[in-house]
Amino acid sequence: MAPELDVTEWLNGEPAPLSSLRGKVVMVEAFQMLCPGCVSHGIPQAQKVHQMTDPDQLAVVGLHTVFEHHSVMGRDALEVFISEYRLGFPVGIDRHIPDDPIPVTMRRYRLQGTPSILLIDRQGRLRYSGFGSGEDLNLGMTLGQLLAEDDNTN
Amino acid sequence: MAPELDVTEWLNGEPAPLSSLRGKVVMVEAFQMLCPGCVSHGIPQAQKVHQMTDPDQLAVVGLHTVFEHHSVMGRDALEVFISEYRLGFPVGIDRHIPDDPIPVTMRRYRLQGTPSILLIDRQGRLRYSGFGSGEDLNLGMTLGQLLAEDDNTN
Amino acid sequence: MAPELDVTEWLNGEPAPLSSLRGKVVMVEAFQMLCPGCVSHGIPQAQKVHQMTDPDQLAVVGLHTVFEHHSVMGRDALEVFISEYRLGFPVGIDRHIPDDPIPVTMRRYRLQGTPSILLIDRQGRLRYSGFGSGEDLNLGMTLGQLLAEDDNTN
Amino acid sequence: MAPELDVTEWLNGEPAPLSSLRGKVVMVEAFQMLCPGCVSHGIPQAQKVHQMTDPDQLAVVGLHTVFEHHSVMGRDALEVFISEYRLGFPVGIDRHIPDDPIPVTMRRYRLQGTPSILLIDRQGRLRYSGFGSGEDLNLGMTLGQLLAEDDNTN
Repeated sequence: MAPELDVTEWLNGEPAPLSSLRGKVVMVEAFQMLCPGCVSHGIPQAQKVHQMTDPDQLAVVGLHTVFEHHSVMGRDALEVFISEYRLGFPVGIDRHIPDDPIPVTMRRYRLQGTPSILLIDRQGRLRYSGFGSGEDLNLGMTLGQLLAEDDNTN
Repeated sequence: MAPELDVTEWLNGEPAPLSSLRGKVVMVEAFQMLCPGCVSHGIPQAQKVHQMTDPDQLAVVGLHTVFEHHSVMGRDALEVFISEYRLGFPVGIDRHIPDDPIPVTMRRYRLQGTPSILLIDRQGRLRYSGFGSGEDLNLGMTLGQLLAEDDNTN
Repeated sequence: MAPELDVTEWLNGEPAPLSSLRGKVVMVEAFQMLCPGCVSHGIPQAQKVHQMTDPDQLAVVGLHTVFEHHSVMGRDALEVFISEYRLGFPVGIDRHIPDDPIPVTMRRYRLQGTPSILLIDRQGRLRYSGFGSGEDLNLGMTLGQLLAEDDNTN
Repeated sequence: MAPELDVTEWLNGEPAPLSSLRGKVVMVEAFQMLCPGCVSHGIPQAQKVHQMTDPDQLAVVGLHTVFEHHSVMGRDALEVFISEYRLGFPVGIDRHIPDDPIPVTMRRYRLQGTPSILLIDRQGRLRYSGFGSGEDLNLGMTLGQLLAEDDNTN
């Protein structure tokens, strides 16, 4: 099962913990707002998925996993980023604990960096975790396969 | 059921009639070699699908549906096109009958123009027919859903 | 001085020999209609230059330099290509002589292949000859420098 | 004459006031680090000009003209941005005065927003000021024309 996202605050809409999304396919886009690959590839791809799919079937969730330059990627800066880039999906702020630059959820999922994508099926199982943002075609095929599965497959 | 492709000749590999592809998902890319939208979008998308997917699960098939400028898009010109663009999939030449500029398979599927995409499921049923080449993400999701289906669904 | 283009026929507008263009900067786009690099880069770049510049100052001229697959890139096929791609500039057909697959102007300018670009200044001197289609920024800078020169520099 | 840039601090290299650049063509890229159009178009274009041109002939200068969300686009955040996006040119921070959200140089040049481009000739005269980042081809042509001018034209 995909462990829960440990988030200190949800911005840009209702809180979206994984526990609330059971029955839907979930795409988590882990990013940092000042990471060039996130801004040019990961975020636009997540936006596109959000805009092109049925929110009753697929939930896109942003996860702000800051592991460097913490002082300039805080909550206020993230809010501006969300507004300027007109993100359409909720964004959770990954939790920091003292003396660890890497936030809790990022460690939990052993993410290699940003952007990273997590794909979780309707039953809450982690089905994909990958660093980078691949081709839209590949992402689409994986999403399509997960969407085709029943709520109670297996 | 998807009607068979009525092809006078197969280029670039073994003949690939639909009857031979049962059990696989099939993507048919209908194109004309001098159609700008085919060259810039449809053909590259079909190439990408061909390169990124398992040929035992998904077959990409080109269909040369010439409905205009017939004299300059004949067999010899098509052969050069296939070679210059390094197409990796077989291409069938849609059959012409006397006094009809529109070839037989194009009529049979009521294609609106080129490029067009046909998607056929593992059981040989037509599941999608559309004019143009949409977003890779959308195409990927549809392909993923078809790939997730059993050979004997329903 | 840039040698004259040896053209058997001009399509898509009035004949545009270099001798008629003295006083203007000239960009010659040498291409083959079935060459993928020409279709995806060279031709669109030439179109863009044609659309963005003042025809009284800069002339864009196409040169169809067929050195392979001659039988399927003849005059009739080229006419369809010009029409389908909505080219806005005149296109000359480079002359062939018996027993030489490489046409006369292509030999004269020692072009390495297609696409190639020739840039000729207001006084008719060849100032650039290069294989491929480079960055728009670089091409723009060279064009800008040539446009800034007087008709009777030197 | 182009008025001087009123900058409180120069980051990423030596200070680059206009007075120090006389004899060169100067391209000033006015931007905000959290402005999507700057990040996706203006900054990459400025980087490309910087990388493709001779620094003895053309100077690219960034100007951080923050007119909104000041608290999250301060000096420290800008430093991270410069480092993450590997900018190759110096960046000046436009001066703020009390009770005015719009910085001094931005007002002085009456910039409409970000990104904006200023082009200054070898003699220090403002030759172009525009909102947005246009086509590379157009920018290249203007730069080419300015580069072709003598130091003491007129």
